[in-house]
Amino acid sequence: MTFDYPARRARLAEALPAREVHALLVTSPVNVRYLTGLVSSNAAVLVRADGTALLATDNRYIEAARTLDVPSVEVADVAGRLAAPGVGIEAASMSVATYRRLEDGLVPLGPVVELLRAVKDDGELELIRTACAITDQAFADVSSRIAPGMSERELARLLEHRMSELGADKPAFDTIVAAGENGAVPHHTPTSRELRAGNLVTMDFGARYDGYHSDMTRTVSLGPPADWQRELYDLVAEAQRAGRHALAPGAEAGDVDTAARSVIENAGHGGHFRHGLGHGVGLEIHEEPFLGPSRTARLEDRVPITVEPGVYVPGRGGVRIEDTLVTREGGPELFTKTTKELLVL
Amino acid sequence: MTFDYPARRARLAEALPAREVHALLVTSPVNVRYLTGLVSSNAAVLVRADGTALLATDNRYIEAARTLDVPSVEVADVAGRLAAPGVGIEAASMSVATYRRLEDGLVPLGPVVELLRAVKDDGELELIRTACAITDQAFADVSSRIAPGMSERELARLLEHRMSELGADKPAFDTIVAAGENGAVPHHTPTSRELRAGNLVTMDFGARYDGYHSDMTRTVSLGPPADWQRELYDLVAEAQRAGRHALAPGAEAGDVDTAARSVIENAGHGGHFRHGLGHGVGLEIHEEPFLGPSRTARLEDRVPITVEPGVYVPGRGGVRIEDTLVTREGGPELFTKTTKELLVL
Repeated sequence: MTFDYPARRARLAEALPAREVHALLVTSPVNVRYLTGLVSSNAAVLVRADGTALLATDNRYIEAARTLDVPSVEVADVAGRLAAPGVGIEAASMSVATYRRLEDGLVPLGPVVELLRAVKDDGELELIRTACAITDQAFADVSSRIAPGMSERELARLLEHRMSELGADKPAFDTIVAAGENGAVPHHTPTSRELRAGNLVTMDFGARYDGYHSDMTRTVSLGPPADWQRELYDLVAEAQRAGRHALAPGAEAGDVDTAARSVIENAGHGGHFRHGLGHGVGLEIHEEPFLGPSRTARLEDRVPITVEPGVYVPGRGGVRIEDTLVTREGGPELFTKTTKELLVL
Repeated sequence: MTFDYPARRARLAEALPAREVHALLVTSPVNVRYLTGLVSSNAAVLVRADGTALLATDNRYIEAARTLDVPSVEVADVAGRLAAPGVGIEAASMSVATYRRLEDGLVPLGPVVELLRAVKDDGELELIRTACAITDQAFADVSSRIAPGMSERELARLLEHRMSELGADKPAFDTIVAAGENGAVPHHTPTSRELRAGNLVTMDFGARYDGYHSDMTRTVSLGPPADWQRELYDLVAEAQRAGRHALAPGAEAGDVDTAARSVIENAGHGGHFRHGLGHGVGLEIHEEPFLGPSRTARLEDRVPITVEPGVYVPGRGGVRIEDTLVTREGGPELFTKTTKELLVL
């Protein structure tokens, strides 16, 4: 997949004067990739308000850099080569050590490239759609093998192996599998704990495909669910539906969060849902925009994003249901196709 | 595996007055883990010169934090809760955005905890030994399956799957498999290129086990090697041996690098070996100390480290041989046990 990197740099160049800088020194590796196509762990690109650009990297990546459509140089001090007074820097990713080593007059800025990245082009959407299809298929293939006696860690590995076999570069993040009472911990790390009949089992996993990510969560029931489990599941499913239906270009991020959260609060579980409703997905697994209480950003068209409410009851367990979708005029397109009915295995 | 976290914090507290701070605000997640045992992506621990400490994290990790032997609080602004004038900060990992948000009077410091982490205790060495054993076994199991027609990417997946089956948490880093002319790129990303008879194939991979890492590289020959391939291999093996033999407590990092590099330079390939000789291995795959030209740090006892010279000939291919070892009085202990004879498959 190739992208129109000059067009991306042109969009960035147009945004710079409003930030009161004449150029931006981009040092975040994923942002360098977005603007030039260079995949590296150490590179910087200077994008000037006049639209010109210069790329610097070290000897590991210079051969690849020279094949790109932007002038490139090889240096040891990658950021230092391009720093100059009046140039903006990415304050969220540049370290204090690097900043202090560079010359005076740099202007720390908030997310600039990150906001450009939120809206995806067709090629990017296709990669995320593929990553989501891998995740769906892995879930379908592995869920038939879930049984009491399997450990959380074994189940996590099965999902990761299957995604790899289906073409994923790697897992999008460390897979979460949480059984029974462990389901009350939103970011539980899989352990040797065995799945047991009567457990709710939450799986939160994703694939990286050609640099782009997918993210999905399903909670299943091992054996027929108890009443409290069924009620919790139906509540989260209702909240997730409300969140999805609130997703639209022009909607305020905080309002989307509220649409889902109020369902959970009205059921008396507000204190058991203590994370944001969702996040953008792209070259990073968590990126702009973020859905959470009091977030004021407005959603745009063509923004892939997750909707993932959860209810976590300490000592008992939890439920989370998560899709990756993309905002569209006329209603979001669902990339995660797996059913949201409670699966009883 | 549990560690003596109070002893680690006491060692840090002793080192602080020399840095002219009365406390260090530790925000690097791996350093927080090292000092408290908390595994998280967002936490900070303040360690004071008097040996007391305070841990802050968010609601995802607060339950785990409360089980530890250090007072902990839950806050949204994790670093901000603990920042105060005269407190040192970790300049290499704190972002400019976080630094500017915190109050004045913080003192940016270089690696402090990182230098403490270089010397490992018995429990840490045991975990790294296990991670290396997984890597050795995965190589043994997979190498019998390497054959022409297999792609670089398939071979990388086989290695990663086998490490996972053998108990690895995950790969230590993105596995490198480079066949034929791709072997001339030290950090080659595996592609769909198929292995062919007559290729040298370089595999650089490692396992993470309970948070600790291993790192090994072997280059094998698919079919009988040509003379130039055999000569390149023997040269790198000789350089690798020289590097290993120079590893000793008290040795200067630059001198160890020179021991190996001079072998390659004397053979006229100095321009084809353009990275450092090795790096420490522990909670991070690349950590202190680093072996490279003009590095003046002196090695200590009980420091796990890699020795990984390579020769990369553009357009033709390359060879790299890498072990993980640990410095010891009386000579290094080899953690990577796989033979360094050229394997002809």
